[in-house]
Amino acid sequence: MSASTPTTATPATDRHQQGTAQVAVTGLAVMGRNLARNLARNGFRVAVHNRTTSRAEALVEEFGHEGDFTLARTAEELVAALERPRRIIVMVKAGEATDAVLDELVPLLDEGDIVADAGNAHWRDTVRRHAALADKGIRFAGVGVSGGEVGALEGPSIMPGCDADTYGELGPFLEIISAHVDDEPCCTLIGPDGSGHFVKMVHNGIEYSDMQLIAETYDLLRGPLGLPVDAVADTFRAWNDTELESYLVQITAEVLAHTDADTGRPFVDVVRDAAEQKGTGRWTVQTALDLGVPVTGIAEATMARAVSGDTERRAAVREALEPVDDGDEGGSDAAAVDLSVDDLRAALYAAKVVSYAQGLDMVREGSRENDWDIDPADLSRIWRDGCIIRARLLGDITQAVEEHPDAPSLLATPTFAAAVADRLPALRRVVTAAVASGTPAPVFSAVLAYVDALRAERLPAALVQGLRDYFGAHTYERVDREGTFHTEWSKDRAEVEA
Amino acid sequence: MSASTPTTATPATDRHQQGTAQVAVTGLAVMGRNLARNLARNGFRVAVHNRTTSRAEALVEEFGHEGDFTLARTAEELVAALERPRRIIVMVKAGEATDAVLDELVPLLDEGDIVADAGNAHWRDTVRRHAALADKGIRFAGVGVSGGEVGALEGPSIMPGCDADTYGELGPFLEIISAHVDDEPCCTLIGPDGSGHFVKMVHNGIEYSDMQLIAETYDLLRGPLGLPVDAVADTFRAWNDTELESYLVQITAEVLAHTDADTGRPFVDVVRDAAEQKGTGRWTVQTALDLGVPVTGIAEATMARAVSGDTERRAAVREALEPVDDGDEGGSDAAAVDLSVDDLRAALYAAKVVSYAQGLDMVREGSRENDWDIDPADLSRIWRDGCIIRARLLGDITQAVEEHPDAPSLLATPTFAAAVADRLPALRRVVTAAVASGTPAPVFSAVLAYVDALRAERLPAALVQGLRDYFGAHTYERVDREGTFHTEWSKDRAEVEA
Repeated sequence: MSASTPTTATPATDRHQQGTAQVAVTGLAVMGRNLARNLARNGFRVAVHNRTTSRAEALVEEFGHEGDFTLARTAEELVAALERPRRIIVMVKAGEATDAVLDELVPLLDEGDIVADAGNAHWRDTVRRHAALADKGIRFAGVGVSGGEVGALEGPSIMPGCDADTYGELGPFLEIISAHVDDEPCCTLIGPDGSGHFVKMVHNGIEYSDMQLIAETYDLLRGPLGLPVDAVADTFRAWNDTELESYLVQITAEVLAHTDADTGRPFVDVVRDAAEQKGTGRWTVQTALDLGVPVTGIAEATMARAVSGDTERRAAVREALEPVDDGDEGGSDAAAVDLSVDDLRAALYAAKVVSYAQGLDMVREGSRENDWDIDPADLSRIWRDGCIIRARLLGDITQAVEEHPDAPSLLATPTFAAAVADRLPALRRVVTAAVASGTPAPVFSAVLAYVDALRAERLPAALVQGLRDYFGAHTYERVDREGTFHTEWSKDRAEVEA
Repeated sequence: MSASTPTTATPATDRHQQGTAQVAVTGLAVMGRNLARNLARNGFRVAVHNRTTSRAEALVEEFGHEGDFTLARTAEELVAALERPRRIIVMVKAGEATDAVLDELVPLLDEGDIVADAGNAHWRDTVRRHAALADKGIRFAGVGVSGGEVGALEGPSIMPGCDADTYGELGPFLEIISAHVDDEPCCTLIGPDGSGHFVKMVHNGIEYSDMQLIAETYDLLRGPLGLPVDAVADTFRAWNDTELESYLVQITAEVLAHTDADTGRPFVDVVRDAAEQKGTGRWTVQTALDLGVPVTGIAEATMARAVSGDTERRAAVREALEPVDDGDEGGSDAAAVDLSVDDLRAALYAAKVVSYAQGLDMVREGSRENDWDIDPADLSRIWRDGCIIRARLLGDITQAVEEHPDAPSLLATPTFAAAVADRLPALRRVVTAAVASGTPAPVFSAVLAYVDALRAERLPAALVQGLRDYFGAHTYERVDREGTFHTEWSKDRAEVEA
């Protein structure tokens, strides 16, 4: 690794007439900057560019010693700095900012050059951009990156969607900078065009439900079970040595153990209880609805954030319901609730499995619908480290999916059928305790209802079909023979074949 | 009313050189045909047209005696048959078919003519079409119509979105053919462009949750409570004389009482338990997510249909979970469940109220976002009759919303706060019984969790914010002072203002 002289960084065109940088990063906010550093630390010659040049200068000044950086002050300089085919990683805000960067870059590029959007693009935008750039001979990749600030620097999980030849040029860079599990990179070609961003979106959706489940568990430990916050922190810390081992459980323990310096109170008690969102949970649910795949855990988690943020409605309803309260709700009356800490551990694991099952169903259906040929085992494999949802569970999921590639649900694999069945009584006790104590547990409730629906011999959907046929002549099928039927409800109620 | 001579119907251009028809309907499938008949029965001179002319001929032949019909064999004849400004109601399949009809009609029209799309268009398409036609001087209305086949003929609920001057020309026709409550039409100008179809979409979303709640109630009556199907039918019939009085409860009793002629079994037992959907539930949830409004009842109802339809996944999971079943689930063991028929009645009412509250929140937010100035009381008023969700409840909602126009939730009005609070214990018993018996009750569970979340003094969303700040530097607010903060988790854990 040879470091360029950062303090006297000169324009790329002066220094690199030949274009010797192997890869470029444009967009140097925290994620882009750390990706660029990660590439440089791994020995790649990296050109860096940012619309506001001072950011690029600051990067080279502060971290130039970490590797071979070339400072590009303009898009032209960036392009000139690169060997061909050029590899340019774009890490700017999703949406218009991304289109603006592409509009500026593309006219400067040559056929076969590669542009990789590593931002949080909607996968449909990636499909569109892939097609538009293909028309101009530019190879486009939509690259999902998860791991946050630290992951970007030290090794994220990377989900690239692009053509195979593009991956041949780009993949080696991404695989080297990604997290690794037993020398295996947490990066693999997901499939064509939008598939990488699609999978990253589902990853984030699962992250929403994981976090909401942890939050509900915390709430039940503190409320009905009456544990003080430091004991809850200890509980999560201990759980991180069990089947629940995961990044989110680990940092939950740390956040809960943190004391606010200002007030001396637990940190979690001084944070406003209004969860924000950046859109990927919403996109996941919207896409799942288009695909007809029920992702109830992610949907409830996404909506729980919206509920929490609606301070005005919460205050008004709380006030209106209070004086007429029903009185039989114990609040944090632990004695009234038949619930143990172990129940919560088991239920959290089971609920997490169900939520992952729903997410993987969605990936399978998205892949089918878009002809992407995604291998679900690839996902759980590259999510084992680097990303926010990294967890011991993902190794087991990988194994189950590999052994039973045709199982129509993770819950239909022997390992996870047994795991969930074993924990169903605990999950029932958790939801029952939540209901009795008035503690909202929307995701626990939703995933239990989902399992019970899948298990049901017979669902009341037959009545829904009957009603739809009654008022809208929407027809129905029968259990005993093929065909589509309608009952003439407003006439003699005879059945006709539709 | 003068009936034209139906059996010898001649082209419009021959008979109506002046163009004396007051209104036209193009698209004569069951809904369009019945709307045309409804108009003619009410004394309007109606021109009728259908791409396949035989359908228009059949209408005039069969129902010509009901009023003054003019048969138009082509779009040109249709346009020529009308007085000016022309009023043309389009009732074709939403999407491309609607665009095709507009493409054919618009070049034939004159400035100021009115085209009303009464199909199930997505409201965003209606916004687009309104703008496109306005550029050409054509007035466009997006008209939501609910009531099914019978409603279209005898008086539907009608939700028109258009400019006020357009409503001045079109409204009188729609108001006369709509359902009426105490001489008040179930039709009023909702607001501009897409507002009518938006509101119709939310109506359908609420219809999804209403039907799913009824289905869950039925399932609990038959399962845990062990009632035979005819007793369940009797129960719903009796409930229709209570606060639950509604079209859907009434026809539930009829569907459940119906015996399959073929097998002699209850009709509901021979219908395949896979509920289908035509998209408006999905659109409602997708739009609500964009608006940031939690409509958990509608979301769970929509996804419950998807679960039911996935036969392969259901079979695989049922089989996989069965041999390792947890054994403590009583199924239809009524003795084990502390639940009464009255609990179910009360819970059904409460859950319905919550679901309507969520739907109205969504209308309020959609109106704000699109500058539509919708009066929520208008909706509940025009939904009192004619439409699928017509119910006694809607009169009470209208009154509550009128008396408390600024309440941020229906649940914050005194009437409904009291109604829900009174029934919360019953709702808790219902969800508890569902959980204990393994009967899926996703909408009951979701609305209870929603109420408990709104009522909570403190939500665990604070932990979610803490986690987001930890891994993504997403920042948080504090409960004790203004500002946006970040804790430097990977450094010294000092708090900085962001």
